[in-house]
Amino acid sequence: MRSVVKFGGSSVADIEKMRTIARYLLNRSISGEELVVVVSAMGKTTNALLSMAREAVQNPSKREMDMMLSTGEQVSIALLTMILEAEGQEAVSLTGYQAGILTEGLHTRNKIKDIDTGVIEKHLSQGKVVVVAGFQGYNREGEITTLGRGGSDTTAVALAAKLSCPCEIYTDVDGIYGVDPRIYPKARRLASITYEEMKEMAFLGAKVMEPRSVDIAHHYGVRLYVGSSSEGKPGTVIQEGEDSVEERSITGVSVLENIMMVTIHPLKNVSENTAKIFSKLAKEEINVDMISQSPLPDGSVSVSFTASAEEEPVVRTLLTELLSSMDGVELSIRADILKLSVVGSGMRTQSGVAARLFELFSENAITFLQVTTSEISISYTLEKKYKDQAVQLIADAFHL
Amino acid sequence: MRSVVKFGGSSVADIEKMRTIARYLLNRSISGEELVVVVSAMGKTTNALLSMAREAVQNPSKREMDMMLSTGEQVSIALLTMILEAEGQEAVSLTGYQAGILTEGLHTRNKIKDIDTGVIEKHLSQGKVVVVAGFQGYNREGEITTLGRGGSDTTAVALAAKLSCPCEIYTDVDGIYGVDPRIYPKARRLASITYEEMKEMAFLGAKVMEPRSVDIAHHYGVRLYVGSSSEGKPGTVIQEGEDSVEERSITGVSVLENIMMVTIHPLKNVSENTAKIFSKLAKEEINVDMISQSPLPDGSVSVSFTASAEEEPVVRTLLTELLSSMDGVELSIRADILKLSVVGSGMRTQSGVAARLFELFSENAITFLQVTTSEISISYTLEKKYKDQAVQLIADAFHL
Repeated sequence: MRSVVKFGGSSVADIEKMRTIARYLLNRSISGEELVVVVSAMGKTTNALLSMAREAVQNPSKREMDMMLSTGEQVSIALLTMILEAEGQEAVSLTGYQAGILTEGLHTRNKIKDIDTGVIEKHLSQGKVVVVAGFQGYNREGEITTLGRGGSDTTAVALAAKLSCPCEIYTDVDGIYGVDPRIYPKARRLASITYEEMKEMAFLGAKVMEPRSVDIAHHYGVRLYVGSSSEGKPGTVIQEGEDSVEERSITGVSVLENIMMVTIHPLKNVSENTAKIFSKLAKEEINVDMISQSPLPDGSVSVSFTASAEEEPVVRTLLTELLSSMDGVELSIRADILKLSVVGSGMRTQSGVAARLFELFSENAITFLQVTTSEISISYTLEKKYKDQAVQLIADAFHL
Repeated sequence: MRSVVKFGGSSVADIEKMRTIARYLLNRSISGEELVVVVSAMGKTTNALLSMAREAVQNPSKREMDMMLSTGEQVSIALLTMILEAEGQEAVSLTGYQAGILTEGLHTRNKIKDIDTGVIEKHLSQGKVVVVAGFQGYNREGEITTLGRGGSDTTAVALAAKLSCPCEIYTDVDGIYGVDPRIYPKARRLASITYEEMKEMAFLGAKVMEPRSVDIAHHYGVRLYVGSSSEGKPGTVIQEGEDSVEERSITGVSVLENIMMVTIHPLKNVSENTAKIFSKLAKEEINVDMISQSPLPDGSVSVSFTASAEEEPVVRTLLTELLSSMDGVELSIRADILKLSVVGSGMRTQSGVAARLFELFSENAITFLQVTTSEISISYTLEKKYKDQAVQLIADAFHL
């Protein structure tokens, strides 16, 4: 029996929490299980390192950010391993590089290309608990890389895929909820959810799992479990869809905050200029989310898209430069918005979900700025002020 | 023109100090110099990491200590490189591993075995300032290692040796003094000092340079310069002996604190048991310094030695175990002592230095516990209370 077990930043926030984890791992190891443990940086470490870098320079080079941020997990793996050893459990810590995690892409947002699990397998065969730094790897040039926020989940799932074993993600929530319990206290934890539903939820802002990791789990058929590290309560299993899932028309509502809506208008030569804009954004690896376009009376159009609010300085600089060559085109960026998404595999087979949502918004005078749909989700851009009201209306209406 | 330039922890204690260093490096780089910069961890970082580990477990495994401590320098190199880049200087940071620093020995006290400077040379040839993490390397097993306290000096000097260039060590003092100016305010900075004098001074407690690094500089003929990073004042050059050095009868007085004196008595079967004791200590890499032995009336002896006070728990455990098999042998450890050493190449050629010192101590009723001599130094173990008085007497007597 072998498992990859991942603990997030709040589960390793201090030495006491690490001791709890160590004892938990020890019990499982004693019962003969082979364990690969992936840990994040302790609590607020990553943010502290980020602000140190920003104190130093306005736009830190991303290669150096990776060099710096990767130290957070390195401290965590060393501490957890020391504690395991003090408890009498043989253990070894490995940085991303030492664990053979080869990555590619841009610094601070690398993707895992392959994992050479030779060193991990060797240590496992010697009875050691292997503690791997999440969130980091190395590229072909031998540089230290990081996988971007939430990257420790990706590390864990990718390791589980390569090691052909299930993956457990322990975090500060006790599983996946259809609605954020902080907004809707009656919310129920889901016992299971499909990969696809989870992916939509993750992409759409449910903060429990990083979407890329669900993707990898789905692709390699890694059984995922998400639960709380501090309580004995059962969590949520993420796996292939089952019949029972179909009974729910919608599985959850998720809210993505910290986004911005960028509007460009009036835009002429639409197809040419739209292509220019979005290829420029793609080149800089700006993730553009909801795109909408409306015709203006003079034949030009207004184009809007949403993206992470963190990208605001970069997007503003890029587009200001690009639009300066297009006569009279204006750029406006709104940050007072959020994205609300309703997700459920059931949507495929049950009509009327969209209609019911439009009714709800209309009856309650909630206006939205954009709407997009996928096979199993509908997303709206709303002003932030509608957040709680909209979530509660939907949760009540769909018995979440 | 090429140089290795090293900045210690207090020179990189905060972002402002790093900015000062970056501007200094920029000016030198603009004038065409190839620069390899070695930095320590920021200010108190290493101590903070050490206490975090000790909060976690009593005796952290040394492999994991290295994993943890090496992050301190990694943060420094990333920050300094970001700042250099923001100033318009192409730069790149390298961990010990990336810089090709292969080490061997016990974790937390590895020694540099070899350096593959290929990566550094490549970056230098591209006009980059290369910022290398001091104090760390990797071993044949691919593990992260550290060189022990003061190891950043060793990194810098070893790099200079391999890169065939001079090495400058910037620290919080403006050079080498014959006497600690905090004890003896009239102390004068030395414009130059020989490798041998510096080695004695370093071994004997002058905190400016790590003795191993002076050794390496001596062996490879690396011209060393020690100066202050914050002032324009000239520092001290360390190089082969010159005639002028001979004029001084003694070069300096140094004080080594934080030591302990271990006494074992009564010891029978002297040669056998002494061998057992010291080979046991050597096996654990405990650096034993002054050793003295006195006969007792019954034919047994009393053996004393000094070592770093940090080793107290290890030494106590080792010797208690070893001595338990020897009947009636007692172990006592005194930590209320220091070692005072008088150093100077001039001693070789001028008689009477030792005599003058014994006179001084006797006239002033300063009692000492041990005395040892080398070709260019005399060292005493004294009670701590005599520190200032003894240093001032010697400095006055020898016009330091």
